[in-house]
Amino acid sequence: MHKLTGTAASLYEEVRDLPIVSPHGHCDPEWFATNAPFPDPAALLVVPDHYVFRMLYSQGVPLRYLGIGEAGKDVDPRSVFRLFAKNWFLFLGTPSHFWMTYVLTQTLGVSAALSEETADQIYDQIAEKLEQPAFRPRALYDRFGIEVLATTDGALDDLNHHQTIADSGWNGRVVPTFRPDGVLDPSNPDFRANIVQLALLTGEDTESYSGYLAALRQRRAMFKALGATATDHAIEQIHTEWLGDPDVLFQKLRRGAGSTQDAQAFYGHMLVEMAQMSVEDGLVMQIHGGSRRNTNHLILDRFGRDKGADIPIAVDWVRGLEALLNRVGNTPGFSLLLFTLDETTYARELAPMAGHWPCLRIGPPWWFHDSAAGIARYFDQVVETAGYHNLAGFNDDTRAFLSIPARHDLWRRGVALHLEQQVTRGVFDLADARQLAPLLANDLARNAYRLAS
Amino acid sequence: MHKLTGTAASLYEEVRDLPIVSPHGHCDPEWFATNAPFPDPAALLVVPDHYVFRMLYSQGVPLRYLGIGEAGKDVDPRSVFRLFAKNWFLFLGTPSHFWMTYVLTQTLGVSAALSEETADQIYDQIAEKLEQPAFRPRALYDRFGIEVLATTDGALDDLNHHQTIADSGWNGRVVPTFRPDGVLDPSNPDFRANIVQLALLTGEDTESYSGYLAALRQRRAMFKALGATATDHAIEQIHTEWLGDPDVLFQKLRRGAGSTQDAQAFYGHMLVEMAQMSVEDGLVMQIHGGSRRNTNHLILDRFGRDKGADIPIAVDWVRGLEALLNRVGNTPGFSLLLFTLDETTYARELAPMAGHWPCLRIGPPWWFHDSAAGIARYFDQVVETAGYHNLAGFNDDTRAFLSIPARHDLWRRGVALHLEQQVTRGVFDLADARQLAPLLANDLARNAYRLAS
Amino acid sequence: MHKLTGTAASLYEEVRDLPIVSPHGHCDPEWFATNAPFPDPAALLVVPDHYVFRMLYSQGVPLRYLGIGEAGKDVDPRSVFRLFAKNWFLFLGTPSHFWMTYVLTQTLGVSAALSEETADQIYDQIAEKLEQPAFRPRALYDRFGIEVLATTDGALDDLNHHQTIADSGWNGRVVPTFRPDGVLDPSNPDFRANIVQLALLTGEDTESYSGYLAALRQRRAMFKALGATATDHAIEQIHTEWLGDPDVLFQKLRRGAGSTQDAQAFYGHMLVEMAQMSVEDGLVMQIHGGSRRNTNHLILDRFGRDKGADIPIAVDWVRGLEALLNRVGNTPGFSLLLFTLDETTYARELAPMAGHWPCLRIGPPWWFHDSAAGIARYFDQVVETAGYHNLAGFNDDTRAFLSIPARHDLWRRGVALHLEQQVTRGVFDLADARQLAPLLANDLARNAYRLAS
Repeated sequence: MHKLTGTAASLYEEVRDLPIVSPHGHCDPEWFATNAPFPDPAALLVVPDHYVFRMLYSQGVPLRYLGIGEAGKDVDPRSVFRLFAKNWFLFLGTPSHFWMTYVLTQTLGVSAALSEETADQIYDQIAEKLEQPAFRPRALYDRFGIEVLATTDGALDDLNHHQTIADSGWNGRVVPTFRPDGVLDPSNPDFRANIVQLALLTGEDTESYSGYLAALRQRRAMFKALGATATDHAIEQIHTEWLGDPDVLFQKLRRGAGSTQDAQAFYGHMLVEMAQMSVEDGLVMQIHGGSRRNTNHLILDRFGRDKGADIPIAVDWVRGLEALLNRVGNTPGFSLLLFTLDETTYARELAPMAGHWPCLRIGPPWWFHDSAAGIARYFDQVVETAGYHNLAGFNDDTRAFLSIPARHDLWRRGVALHLEQQVTRGVFDLADARQLAPLLANDLARNAYRLAS
Repeated sequence: MHKLTGTAASLYEEVRDLPIVSPHGHCDPEWFATNAPFPDPAALLVVPDHYVFRMLYSQGVPLRYLGIGEAGKDVDPRSVFRLFAKNWFLFLGTPSHFWMTYVLTQTLGVSAALSEETADQIYDQIAEKLEQPAFRPRALYDRFGIEVLATTDGALDDLNHHQTIADSGWNGRVVPTFRPDGVLDPSNPDFRANIVQLALLTGEDTESYSGYLAALRQRRAMFKALGATATDHAIEQIHTEWLGDPDVLFQKLRRGAGSTQDAQAFYGHMLVEMAQMSVEDGLVMQIHGGSRRNTNHLILDRFGRDKGADIPIAVDWVRGLEALLNRVGNTPGFSLLLFTLDETTYARELAPMAGHWPCLRIGPPWWFHDSAAGIARYFDQVVETAGYHNLAGFNDDTRAFLSIPARHDLWRRGVALHLEQQVTRGVFDLADARQLAPLLANDLARNAYRLAS
Repeated sequence: MHKLTGTAASLYEEVRDLPIVSPHGHCDPEWFATNAPFPDPAALLVVPDHYVFRMLYSQGVPLRYLGIGEAGKDVDPRSVFRLFAKNWFLFLGTPSHFWMTYVLTQTLGVSAALSEETADQIYDQIAEKLEQPAFRPRALYDRFGIEVLATTDGALDDLNHHQTIADSGWNGRVVPTFRPDGVLDPSNPDFRANIVQLALLTGEDTESYSGYLAALRQRRAMFKALGATATDHAIEQIHTEWLGDPDVLFQKLRRGAGSTQDAQAFYGHMLVEMAQMSVEDGLVMQIHGGSRRNTNHLILDRFGRDKGADIPIAVDWVRGLEALLNRVGNTPGFSLLLFTLDETTYARELAPMAGHWPCLRIGPPWWFHDSAAGIARYFDQVVETAGYHNLAGFNDDTRAFLSIPARHDLWRRGVALHLEQQVTRGVFDLADARQLAPLLANDLARNAYRLAS
């Protein structure tokens, strides 16, 4: 557990128990719709967590032994958990070690240290917990002090689970996020089929560009009706452009006739269209840039997406966003949150950009950088140029539901350490730090995502 | 105010009051030529400082309300100052906060904390000061302990203000710097007109390449005669090359017929010509690389250049300077100072290059990186490979005259903290640190710019 | 000397005297084959150390005065040493200062501080030492506590010195490393001659692609027979690809008819072939990427390679290795160690890649980054994503034999400081740190290079 003393400890105490605002992540809305118990400790803690199994795979543990994919579906969850426990030492020094320890001790009440020897005993303890009502998704949501939790949902998602939640009368606030990459990016193998599907879902004629835009507007409205306040885009290379006649390219790509350049140009144009729709409907736009997906083709073929082989690459936010920003970047009310995996862009690009454009806010340290040292580097490199008010606070971006309190806790510790350092160095005084602590803990996130209710 | 204790405090004390050597910046020579009072607090502290108004703009404050541009020219300066004061909290954690606090308390004797409530009172206090003789430009120059101050002047500048200063018998040393980008870079919209202007100014036939070179030599000589010791180039992408027959391209570009590639090639060639002229006339060459200018087109159109929308991009010093360095980099007496906004090049490119080429010195942390954390990162990343003697000391690079002492003070604090850390870690002992402190405070700058008189 | 106190000091004590595993470097095997005395202090400490003479050259000292190259071969070694001593102050803050001080005080028993005044006296002291049996290469190897030392040897090297060492009955373990760039990279000016030479050396018909592969296999086997456990590749741009019909390109390039693109494609293909041969024969593959060699053409022409003008450039490991990794990256038993001069790739590329691919290990901070701050940045940026077990431990990569203990000592101090920091921050406890210290000191290196005997 990351230790705090002195000023840091007292700043942390002031924000430790504040409600959790979780405006971006990948939890499954089905959990909260059905409120069914989580099946078993391995399915809860190992199988869905690519941070965990990528590390095991990197040290030679086959994914199928970890219950991943078709090949792993009949593997005994207890043996998965044992394998994880046996290799627990590999995680020393990683944020997963902190998160998992937090989950085991704080959330699941496990006191024994995880190891090959204690694996079975801990497995049983957790399995027993999971049968209790207090460990069902909605109960945990309450216990975690979550104020609002956003999921991430494809543009073609029927949002039935979100509808169920809305209809249920439950006091929790779980909202969708509009992630339309599958219907915007022609390089997606399913793009053409998705466009057809989009027509079926909306009743719009997506064979025309205007019908396609109308369908997108309709989907955005549907998401908004179910509580969405934001959209999200995951793109590898940052590229935007404004096409004079997008319909020409749309027709070409819809026929499957476009080149890679055509696809990139069209997708770049659609990001600007999305920004313009955000101006209209007020949905906050997010761009997660620079992850090269599925770099291990064998793993993709055998086990599917999101299996630990997504690797960051260098990106160019400045030239990449130029077309979009020059079209809507000065428009009041437009808000665009940027997430980077290329830390070199913190001080070089994102902080200067967010310190100028009214629409921009810098997202928190993302993915591999959502860690103690990653948080320290983030503050070190963004604050001097962007200040605090151009930041978008924290989000956990996780599909590991149980890790949410752990991740917010790590952030709050990182905030406390950073503010203590600022006070010690004389950058500002303790009174300033005490005002900034809750801002960074959840106010900035709530405001950036327009989640104040 | 950045706190120092122990060794850092004592190292700082030794250099705090050393004369200020300001070898690169953007002060207006007219201030020192006419020695007129500064008009009002807003015109002094807000309107000319793009660090200040970019932050306000990023949080939705329209530039015209800040007195910027034509649209803002009739705005009451008091209301500009109020708006700034009201948003002062946005600057927490930024170097502007330190600089402004220093200026208000140390230079202007303001004791109240800046806020919406105190805005008017502070405005009046400053306005009153500005009427006093002690707050005129020359008096402040003396009071600041400035030994020499270099301005930055276009190649077509008539240097009248510098001539006036030289003729005035004033004891201050304000020298010009030769910044010829406007007559070298064919991508500049005014390039062709500038070439004509260059002919008128020099009497040389700039329709021929040899006449063009002669005109440039003549301008350099004129700058040198008025005290210049350096040239300066601001370039976006680092690119140099040596053309076999530059006249062909020159004629094409002079007719407005060249491509973007032609323009880049010619400018790359001219940088080498400039380096060769530096070998001849001894002017130190500076390259400020990697700022993408005017990325916000609406702001450029309405408010002009230098309005906070210049954003850094990644650069490649190694291949970019290869042609120039292989032509003159081994020539004794040639000196080239490099400034980067891409901090990734500190350890990867600049320190190894400066640790090899006799002509190279690394400029101080520039622009967004001229800050407490920026200075710490700079030392961390350049010293181990380049040592201290391949650095060019500090320069403030500011157009905010009053901030000069604050900026040098922040640097000297940063130097003291760095040296204390080196002593604590056992890298060298206190005696070494005491020798390095004044070197870094102003000796390196004075030597790098050949300003020892 | 870098100071350690408290926990760091005690962790350091535990690993300080562990055997030195030196799995990658550039010592000359002839030293251990002949065991002749080193000629003189300059030839030992100055002339072969590009870290040393590049700094002197950067401050205007001509290389010929330092005894470098043909031009310097008749220079009095004493005058070389004097020049070095006179300029010793330039090295303040660099790792060379630490290494040289360690060598002088710990290895050579020099107590006087190096300076112009003490130069002659120290020269004499060292010269006297070099005549003693205790200062011959083998005696120093023993005294340094070296367990194994790998040299780096071209594919066409006859390995006679290694054979002599093997036949000598000496207890030292000095093994070759297979560095085949000269016979793989068609952009090498000697490529075609080297292919012919390869045929002569192996008896294979290197005019056919299959014969060429057979010759390479034979050379690998020969290296392995003399103890090699690894190969090594130094490449500027990371590029790999798999050619459908490599023979076509091979024939074209063998005739000298290929383009630059052809050469790059072929070399990229051969790296994959090398990886596949590593799967067959178990040699660990190393890639040292991103050094642009010989950027100073005048120095290359007059003084040759490795003269301080090799400068790092930005690299792209992700796309560069994609072809290779997708061919053999999931194959059990394959091991690939990556070394970067572009520190931005630590957290962005190498740690995520090594935290996924079973074959990958991250090499230690290399060259300019093998320094106190470089080591700190390395740990800060790789551990959270890669953990400790995906690291390849330390190697000294030096051609300055006497500096080996100093370099391993600096690493071990850096390890102790890092682990102390982790304990202080509460990332893990002291017991964990005590287990990690020897792992990082030499176990990881021994395992990564398969040098456990």
